[in-house]
Amino acid sequence: MNTLVLVSHPQIADSGTQEFLKASLPAENISWEHIESQTVLDVAYEQAQLRQADRIILQFPLYWYAAPAGLKQWEDTVLTRSFVYGDHRYPLAGKELGVVVTTGMPAEAFQRGGAEGLTLDAALAPLAAVAQRAKMTWLPTFAIHQFSYLDEPAKLRLVIAYQRYLTQQQPDSLKNRQAWFSDHLATMIAQLAEQDQSTGRLIEEAFKQKQTDLETLQDTLAMIKEQEDD
Amino acid sequence: MNTLVLVSHPQIADSGTQEFLKASLPAENISWEHIESQTVLDVAYEQAQLRQADRIILQFPLYWYAAPAGLKQWEDTVLTRSFVYGDHRYPLAGKELGVVVTTGMPAEAFQRGGAEGLTLDAALAPLAAVAQRAKMTWLPTFAIHQFSYLDEPAKLRLVIAYQRYLTQQQPDSLKNRQAWFSDHLATMIAQLAEQDQSTGRLIEEAFKQKQTDLETLQDTLAMIKEQEDD
Repeated sequence: MNTLVLVSHPQIADSGTQEFLKASLPAENISWEHIESQTVLDVAYEQAQLRQADRIILQFPLYWYAAPAGLKQWEDTVLTRSFVYGDHRYPLAGKELGVVVTTGMPAEAFQRGGAEGLTLDAALAPLAAVAQRAKMTWLPTFAIHQFSYLDEPAKLRLVIAYQRYLTQQQPDSLKNRQAWFSDHLATMIAQLAEQDQSTGRLIEEAFKQKQTDLETLQDTLAMIKEQEDD
Repeated sequence: MNTLVLVSHPQIADSGTQEFLKASLPAENISWEHIESQTVLDVAYEQAQLRQADRIILQFPLYWYAAPAGLKQWEDTVLTRSFVYGDHRYPLAGKELGVVVTTGMPAEAFQRGGAEGLTLDAALAPLAAVAQRAKMTWLPTFAIHQFSYLDEPAKLRLVIAYQRYLTQQQPDSLKNRQAWFSDHLATMIAQLAEQDQSTGRLIEEAFKQKQTDLETLQDTLAMIKEQEDD
């Protein structure tokens, strides 16, 4: 699966969050692009990038309940009508569209009665409507609230959650999560420091054991269900 | 009342709709500004414009279910946090915020199950959230659908409706509408061609008569209500 990460941030060099996310990118099958770094948007190139991607991630800080102007400029320029739905051809149909949005407020602020008074889903409704128009599949939004307040363990968890959001099979079911960890755990452990290697291998063994336990449980459940259906 | 009309359109010279709306502006107490005509946004000047206005109108074509990038750039640049709600000062509090939005689709498209699949209210929710944050009063949106398909009578009605949206006291009640026409009818008739003047004066007389009739009716209604309350 090819994932295209389109980042919109007017001052990306000053953004610790964007620096962190860039350093957290999975190693393979990722294209990363910063929209505002381009003085002129090359429409043909951008459209080609979209065509070759299976999952498209729009990543930005929430400014006034929407993406920064740079992303809107990209939409207004790159997403021409003829490209998105001209002649009843939908080149983006079936691709997944996900949003990684960072905010300076806690999650609780984004609800009726909260400090911001609207949900992130409501704020992102215009983008979701674009996805719908293009016959794309909208992914549940990946929100990062108050990044600078996160402690180290929370940041490590964020790396994994972010990598999964970019590359894991959707929906985010137990089965798909297991498959993802199965594929990535060995590489993750190999990257640990020397003194942490044995702990890492213990985790891997425990993971495999739990996976076997789960499969046994699922078989048992299936058997019970079969008897109930009789 | 001072009304500030902020127009966002990337190719305003090519827009017949914007040309028509500009020609339809009321004669007095209107400031009109085209955002994209300014190479660099003068933040202090823009903020001063906002401070002196009682009603602020954002006027734009709907691109991808939102305002064009130019308006978002204006928001991201001019609406600094310190200006909008810094130090618990809210310089925009109590001012009215209205949106004049033009679309290429019919009104019916903007509903669940319609071709666009979301309401204009849903598309404009991020702007409404800005108004809420600034403690402004959100006006019902003034939408112009498929302007180029309007015939002459519809266009004339649009001129009046637009002028009322920009200058009439809110809410758009019968009383406020009457007061607005009372103030404007004489000027409107004076602008008619020579041969239409007598028709104009007949309309004015009929309007005044109906107004008197209405007042009599309202008095009668008040009397009936009083008796019922006894």
